[in-house]
Amino acid sequence: MLILSSVNIQRMSHQQSFEVRTRGRGTTEITAEVARIARASGIAIGIAQVFVQHTSCSVMITENADPSVRRDLETLAARWAPDADPAYCHDAEGDDDMAAHARSLLAGTSVTVPVSKGALLLGTWQGIYLWEHRCGGQLRRVVVTILGQEMTLERGSV
Amino acid sequence: MLILSSVNIQRMSHQQSFEVRTRGRGTTEITAEVARIARASGIAIGIAQVFVQHTSCSVMITENADPSVRRDLETLAARWAPDADPAYCHDAEGDDDMAAHARSLLAGTSVTVPVSKGALLLGTWQGIYLWEHRCGGQLRRVVVTILGQEMTLERGSV
Amino acid sequence: MLILSSVNIQRMSHQQSFEVRTRGRGTTEITAEVARIARASGIAIGIAQVFVQHTSCSVMITENADPSVRRDLETLAARWAPDADPAYCHDAEGDDDMAAHARSLLAGTSVTVPVSKGALLLGTWQGIYLWEHRCGGQLRRVVVTILGQEMTLERGSV
Repeated sequence: MLILSSVNIQRMSHQQSFEVRTRGRGTTEITAEVARIARASGIAIGIAQVFVQHTSCSVMITENADPSVRRDLETLAARWAPDADPAYCHDAEGDDDMAAHARSLLAGTSVTVPVSKGALLLGTWQGIYLWEHRCGGQLRRVVVTILGQEMTLERGSV
Repeated sequence: MLILSSVNIQRMSHQQSFEVRTRGRGTTEITAEVARIARASGIAIGIAQVFVQHTSCSVMITENADPSVRRDLETLAARWAPDADPAYCHDAEGDDDMAAHARSLLAGTSVTVPVSKGALLLGTWQGIYLWEHRCGGQLRRVVVTILGQEMTLERGSV
Repeated sequence: MLILSSVNIQRMSHQQSFEVRTRGRGTTEITAEVARIARASGIAIGIAQVFVQHTSCSVMITENADPSVRRDLETLAARWAPDADPAYCHDAEGDDDMAAHARSLLAGTSVTVPVSKGALLLGTWQGIYLWEHRCGGQLRRVVVTILGQEMTLERGSV
């Protein structure tokens, strides 16, 4: 003799950080870590936002098949933002200091990827990379936020 | 004699894909498609994330009034990431292969636009474009995710 | 004798705009405004999306300590997208018109930052800036959308 109630338990936001130790300029693939966090979030449909808390490295999406793509990006980056450019005022941390900030601007500090059924909705050839722009190795912190909808609607009735 | 219950039905995440057949380098406006998906989502306040599942084309926001803006962007892109640069290692798919990956990095693979009352909160002169970076036509898949809040709070009481 | 019901009041989306009057090329820090909106949103875990409704200025994240970083970015931007380039077709609004659109593409029209406990999860040296790319001062509209989860679950029982 009685009711009810829709108990609506919906998680819609999940956040987790991890660190990457880089070894100077170059890329570290982080697709698997981000995918793991997305899966663990319990969110079915939504987005994964991947953010790096630094201004001299980037998070980017690029081709995951041939490593020479990332090598060529490094070559181009050296033209877009050369080390030790005589025009720079900012060189407190060395020849690669301002170049790293400029590359961080061009390649960005975050990417956002759609999530479907708890999986990253990346294309076949897309990988997520941390791109170190400093010449020396650094410890980099990556924050992953998963937002969206979890389809857990429990309904009880007596 | 009896109660109950706020039945809280809130949708907060909606996802839809569509394809664009490109005809080689150049832009295809997709603002209307994204706006339609945002409107259909039933989400009142939030964001629309527009993502392309490829590493050799971009989604970007730029001026929608004068097409010569997009032509000039193409001219600049040819300087930022020239075709057939002798420095490239990666040329498996031809002279435009690495140039396309580099332009995809610079222009990005996604944009995020605020949504208000179910409409994209774009400025008057902002359009959303798929920018093909390969010389040949391609079939491109765009994933649109709308996240936010739908103001449907039903309350029944007996 | 009777029930109950979980009353689930969750806000998950908050949107607010503000204007910035710029004084020509250069940066205006907007970190504090965005942080204020994030705090006021009541959202504990999520993201803050900061979007500018224009195609000739940017929102970007860069180093907040030494202003010479932003000066050097301006220097580089003048190489990436020079004023009055003879190759441009689009110059309706003057020598800085097309350069501004191209810089807006490269630096982007929005940034997204994770939010934790109502605070922006920025690194120590990260600031959010509006970057004006036109030579003359402009009035710029910034839209901030906070999305995520507010932990207000009220449960009544009789």
